[in-house]
Amino acid sequence: MKSTTASAQALPPQPALSPADEAFLEDFATMSAFGATASGGVDRQAASVADVSQRQWFAERLEAHGLRVEYDRIGNQFGLLERVPGAPFVVVGSHMDSQPTAGRFDGAYGVLAAAHAAFRLAGEWERSGEVPRFNIAVVNWFNEEGSRFVPSMMGSSVFTGKLPLDKALATCDRDGVSVREALEPTGFLGDGDGPTAAFCAEIHIEQGRNLENSGTTIGLVTSSWAANKYEFVVNGDQAHSGATLMEDRRDALLGASLLVVAAREIADRFPGVLHTSVGQLDVYPNSPVVVASRVSLLLDLRSADESVLRLADELLHTRIEEIEATARVTVERHHSHSWGVTPYQREGVELARRGAERLGLSHTDIMTVAGHDSINMKDLVPTVMLFVPSSEGISHNEFEFTTDEDMVAGLRLLTEVVRGLAAGEITG
Amino acid sequence: MKSTTASAQALPPQPALSPADEAFLEDFATMSAFGATASGGVDRQAASVADVSQRQWFAERLEAHGLRVEYDRIGNQFGLLERVPGAPFVVVGSHMDSQPTAGRFDGAYGVLAAAHAAFRLAGEWERSGEVPRFNIAVVNWFNEEGSRFVPSMMGSSVFTGKLPLDKALATCDRDGVSVREALEPTGFLGDGDGPTAAFCAEIHIEQGRNLENSGTTIGLVTSSWAANKYEFVVNGDQAHSGATLMEDRRDALLGASLLVVAAREIADRFPGVLHTSVGQLDVYPNSPVVVASRVSLLLDLRSADESVLRLADELLHTRIEEIEATARVTVERHHSHSWGVTPYQREGVELARRGAERLGLSHTDIMTVAGHDSINMKDLVPTVMLFVPSSEGISHNEFEFTTDEDMVAGLRLLTEVVRGLAAGEITG
Repeated sequence: MKSTTASAQALPPQPALSPADEAFLEDFATMSAFGATASGGVDRQAASVADVSQRQWFAERLEAHGLRVEYDRIGNQFGLLERVPGAPFVVVGSHMDSQPTAGRFDGAYGVLAAAHAAFRLAGEWERSGEVPRFNIAVVNWFNEEGSRFVPSMMGSSVFTGKLPLDKALATCDRDGVSVREALEPTGFLGDGDGPTAAFCAEIHIEQGRNLENSGTTIGLVTSSWAANKYEFVVNGDQAHSGATLMEDRRDALLGASLLVVAAREIADRFPGVLHTSVGQLDVYPNSPVVVASRVSLLLDLRSADESVLRLADELLHTRIEEIEATARVTVERHHSHSWGVTPYQREGVELARRGAERLGLSHTDIMTVAGHDSINMKDLVPTVMLFVPSSEGISHNEFEFTTDEDMVAGLRLLTEVVRGLAAGEITG
Repeated sequence: MKSTTASAQALPPQPALSPADEAFLEDFATMSAFGATASGGVDRQAASVADVSQRQWFAERLEAHGLRVEYDRIGNQFGLLERVPGAPFVVVGSHMDSQPTAGRFDGAYGVLAAAHAAFRLAGEWERSGEVPRFNIAVVNWFNEEGSRFVPSMMGSSVFTGKLPLDKALATCDRDGVSVREALEPTGFLGDGDGPTAAFCAEIHIEQGRNLENSGTTIGLVTSSWAANKYEFVVNGDQAHSGATLMEDRRDALLGASLLVVAAREIADRFPGVLHTSVGQLDVYPNSPVVVASRVSLLLDLRSADESVLRLADELLHTRIEEIEATARVTVERHHSHSWGVTPYQREGVELARRGAERLGLSHTDIMTVAGHDSINMKDLVPTVMLFVPSSEGISHNEFEFTTDEDMVAGLRLLTEVVRGLAAGEITG
C-alpha cells in the first residue's frame, strides 16, 4: 500500500474530487478487501469464497441504487437500470474474479466504474426527467480470468454464443469441481440468457506501458491482437530417473520443456509483434525419482498481425514434430480457443474520443493485447473499450497500480460514453 | 497380469518350487494387493493408507513366524530374530513404499525375500539346534522412494546418521503434512535407534537391462554410481502472459525449462556414463494467463565416474548462469543429498558369489545406478547387494516385471548370504 501513497503524492495537483468520485473510491477500497493478500493484491478466483462474498456485496450496492439484480445461466451478474421497458440494453462492465495473487485493479475497476456510471446517469435522468433510448445493464462477467476454469472469458463467451452453455457448465477445475457444482450453491445460476444487448462498453487498466510512457490518460481501443490458445498434452513413459538408460527414456517433461523454450524462440523471431507464453504446466507423476509420463500445458500465441500468427502457428507445429522425435514423446494438441485481429466499431471509438475531448482528457488510439470480455461482445454489438494507465505495465501481479486520478478520469469518460450509447448517438 | 502368464509360460522348465517357495509367492501375491492399481501396479507412497495397511499386515506375518516387531524413531520397521541375546544383527531388507503408479516388485520383493530368508533360517536353526554368531533383523526402511517426502532413502539415512532425525521428522509433503504428523497416528514411531547392525544385505530388481540381455539370473553389486541431487528454485516475476512485453518478462517457467533441457544436453555429452533427470517440477501460480513467478524442481546427476560427475556439475552451473541472464531469472540452488562411487565390500561380493555357485545360479558383477538403502548401509557395515532381472529394465512403472523363477532364485541366494553373514563367514 506504500506505493499507492508515494505515487499519488508524486502527481501534480488534479481537479478536485466530487462527492460522487469520493463515493466511487470508497467503494473501490471496500471491494479491494475481498480476498485481499498481505502484499496489497487480491486472490479471488472464479466462484471462490472471496469471489462469492464480493458478488453478494456488489448485488447489495446495485440494489441500494435501485438497480434490479439478475443472473443468467452461466452466472454472469447483471444490475439492470430499466428506464424504457422492453428496450435493449447498453451492457457495461468487466469482471471481478482474479488470478491467484493478482492486482486489485484488473477487472474489478471496470465493474465498479460501470456501476457508478449507471448510478450517475440514473441520478441525472431522475433529476432531468430525461428518458434515454436504451436501458443500462451493469455486468460482472463470470470467470474472465480462466485460472480456475479454462477457458478464460467464459461468461461473455457463453453470453455471445461462442461457447456452448453445457460445455461451460461441465468444465472442471483441477480438483474435479465443475462450474455447475461451484456455482449452484451460490445462488448465482439464473434461468435466463441475460438482458438483450444493443451496445457494450468496458473500461480496464492497460496492462502495458504505452499510456504511462506517453503520459496519456485514456486509451481508445481500436482493435485486439489476435490470439491462439492451445492445450498440449505431452505423453512419454514412466521410468526410473536414475537407472533407466538415457536412450530408453521417453521423458514427457523434457518434451514439454523443449516446447516452452520453442515458444519463446518463435517470439524472438518476431520482436514486438508476437507474444508467446506457457503459464500453466502440470507434471505426472511429478516425483523426484520418476521420469514423467505425462505433462499438460497451456500455450498462447498472440499477434497484432494475423499473418504473423499463422506463420508462428506453422513454426510451432514444425517444432513439435522435431520435439516428438528428439524426446521420443507424442504431443496431443487441443485447440482451446482463439480470436482474430478485429476492430472495435469506428463510431464507438469516435464517440469516446469526443467524450475525452469534452472532459479535457489526453487520449490515444491503442490495441489490446490481453483478452477482454469486450472482445467477445464487439462481435455481437457495437462496443467501446477504454484503457487507463497501469504503472510500469505491471499486471497479474500484486503490485499492479493505477492512481485514483486516472481511475476517476476513466469513470468520468465511461459515464460520457454510456450516456451517449444510451441516447442512441451511434447506430447499432 | 497377462504379461506375467505369457512370460512365465515362455520360460524353460525350472526346478520344482518347494512348499517354502510357494509360501513366499503366496505372500508376494497378498502384498501386491495393497495399493494395487488397475494396470497391475501399486500406489503405496510413504505413510499412505496403503503403506500403513501393508506394514500392519507385514508385522503380523513377522510375528506369526516368531519375530519381534520394533520401530525406530523414523518409522523403520524391524522384525527381530534374536537367537544370540545381545549380539548385533544382520540387517536384511529393503522398502515397501512405492512411487505413485509404480511396479509391485521395487522394494517390496526385497523386504519379503528378507522375511522369508529369516523364516527359513529360523526353521533350520530350530531343527538343527545350531546357534549363529549374529542375530537377524528383517527391515522395511521408511520412505525409500522420496516421492512424498524428499529426500529418498530417508529411513536408512537417519539410521546411518547421514540425516538428522529432527530434520527428517520435520520434512513436509506438498500438502504441508510432516513426516512426524504422518507417522504419529500409525503407531510406527518408536523410541529407539533400532537394532545394532553388524552386516547388511539387500536384494532388489535390477531396474536395468544388463541381466536380462545377458541371460544372467543374479547381479552381484560391486559398487554404486555416484549421484548429486539438487533442488533448484527459479525465481521470476508474475506478469500478464499476453499483454506484458516479451522483453519485460522474467519468466520462471522459461528458466526452469531451459534447465531441464540443459540437464539432458549435458547427459548427451557423456553417453552411457552420465544420467540426468528432472522428475518433479512445480509452477507458481500455474495459471494459463500468468507468467510464472516461481518454479521449483529436483534435478539429479549420476555417473559411474566421479570425475565425470564433477565436470557435469561444473557444466550445469555454467549453464545456470547463462540461463539466469537469458531468462532474466535467479536460480537458488539447494544441495539435497549426494553419494560417491563407493564399493560394496569385496568379501561380501565373494560370499554371494560362492552362494550363487553352490546354487548353480548364473551371476555377474554389476554396478547399481539407482539409489538403494544398502548404499547408505555399506558405509556403516559390510553390505551385500544382489539384483535379479527386471524385464526390459522397466522400472517405476506399473508394467515392471520379474518372473517367479527369478524371484525364488534370488530368495534362495539371499538365504545363503544371510546364513553366511549370521555365521560370521566374513569379518566386519
